[in-house]
Amino acid sequence: MMDPMTYTLVLLRHGESEWNAKNLFTGWVDVALSDKGREEAKHGGELLKDAGILPDVVHTSLLRRAMNTANLALDAADRLWIPVKRNWRLNERHYGALQGKNKAETLEKYGEEQFKLWRRSYDVPPPEIELGSEFSQDTDPRYADAPVVRTECLKDVLERALPYVKEEVFGDLKAGKTVLVAAHGNSLRAIVKFLDGISDDDIAGLNIPTGIPLVYELDEDFKPVNPGGKYLDPAAAAEAIKAVANQGKK
Amino acid sequence: MMDPMTYTLVLLRHGESEWNAKNLFTGWVDVALSDKGREEAKHGGELLKDAGILPDVVHTSLLRRAMNTANLALDAADRLWIPVKRNWRLNERHYGALQGKNKAETLEKYGEEQFKLWRRSYDVPPPEIELGSEFSQDTDPRYADAPVVRTECLKDVLERALPYVKEEVFGDLKAGKTVLVAAHGNSLRAIVKFLDGISDDDIAGLNIPTGIPLVYELDEDFKPVNPGGKYLDPAAAAEAIKAVANQGKK
Repeated sequence: MMDPMTYTLVLLRHGESEWNAKNLFTGWVDVALSDKGREEAKHGGELLKDAGILPDVVHTSLLRRAMNTANLALDAADRLWIPVKRNWRLNERHYGALQGKNKAETLEKYGEEQFKLWRRSYDVPPPEIELGSEFSQDTDPRYADAPVVRTECLKDVLERALPYVKEEVFGDLKAGKTVLVAAHGNSLRAIVKFLDGISDDDIAGLNIPTGIPLVYELDEDFKPVNPGGKYLDPAAAAEAIKAVANQGKK
Repeated sequence: MMDPMTYTLVLLRHGESEWNAKNLFTGWVDVALSDKGREEAKHGGELLKDAGILPDVVHTSLLRRAMNTANLALDAADRLWIPVKRNWRLNERHYGALQGKNKAETLEKYGEEQFKLWRRSYDVPPPEIELGSEFSQDTDPRYADAPVVRTECLKDVLERALPYVKEEVFGDLKAGKTVLVAAHGNSLRAIVKFLDGISDDDIAGLNIPTGIPLVYELDEDFKPVNPGGKYLDPAAAAEAIKAVANQGKK
């Protein structure tokens, strides 16, 4: 149970998608969750239920891996009936021309330095995707109200996500609601960067584990009372973060 | 493809739930879909996709069997990203004190005439459920904004569903949106009774098959251009309706 004088914001990163196993850059490509990803989502909902943290409203991206993560988690928490808000501003980072490309082949083709820059720099986007090509979303009806996006760096994600977060997510928090945001590695990174005041250089080192609710208590100015938030399964979160860090060392 | 001068309303009844096999009265008890019910929902979405009838907004009850039917169908139709509206007024009929009771045992206890009256009369509700009892929803937070419901006949369902349909569903139709309503046998019966002007006596004989989208084209006064609507799989719908009719003869 959270301190009743604070706002409760829960961040949930979707789990494994069908392209994880294939080692492809996903971005805005609307890939489904894998069976493992679906289990992660359900488990996330059970953690919420066990902790007694019951969302009053859910915000998701327009990508099915985040929407289904929200649906599976909320169903497990017996909260599927709460109001639903969806917005492209919570989408994963658009990976530009790399979308649909194999990660290993991209690394080989462009070299490690360039590869790392595209993946982890704050302000260097990959090359723009060709409009009308297979993995571009420029004609997708779900983005009719959004600008055409052809590539993004993390800075771009932050700049398009924050207006939505400040208006809609904070608006719901201000109304006294417990808010769940079900989204992606980079859109959640952007939110956490803002909440915790993480520097442009340090944010690349932050990895948010999948499927484990991250709970922030925020004061009336939306500053974290518990900086860094609290994972509902701290041991599993620590292990997942360590695994990613070790991956980087390989 | 529908005539562009008409409004397109799609009704979708959820499929088999976990209580079908158990032969229990469900009503407002929040039972999950069975695996078969989930398959029915996906198939319903595929029928929508194949017909090119793509919902712009979805309305559901607050019961997970309808919400998950909508989610599975929309995911299959690649429309999971559309706006979602949920309201208790689209719920299944509240079955009163019969909720959670075995149908065969109820038939035996009360006799065929009384049993039939509760199941199929227009204006005779079952006895009221005891507040605070196992299958009552009077303390369920999802109904915080609704009146306490203790039992309903079909007339009651119509009277609470229609204000929502006229305001919210018709409002979305008027805005030019293709609307999907994912709901229940009796809330959909109420809507169809209103749309097609079916009499109080005849409505009990109308059975809407599960998982097959029923598409109405409505004129500007919301009168059906195609009375009775059109099932997207007419052969399967006819077979399902025949099966229910034969069941009644047994």
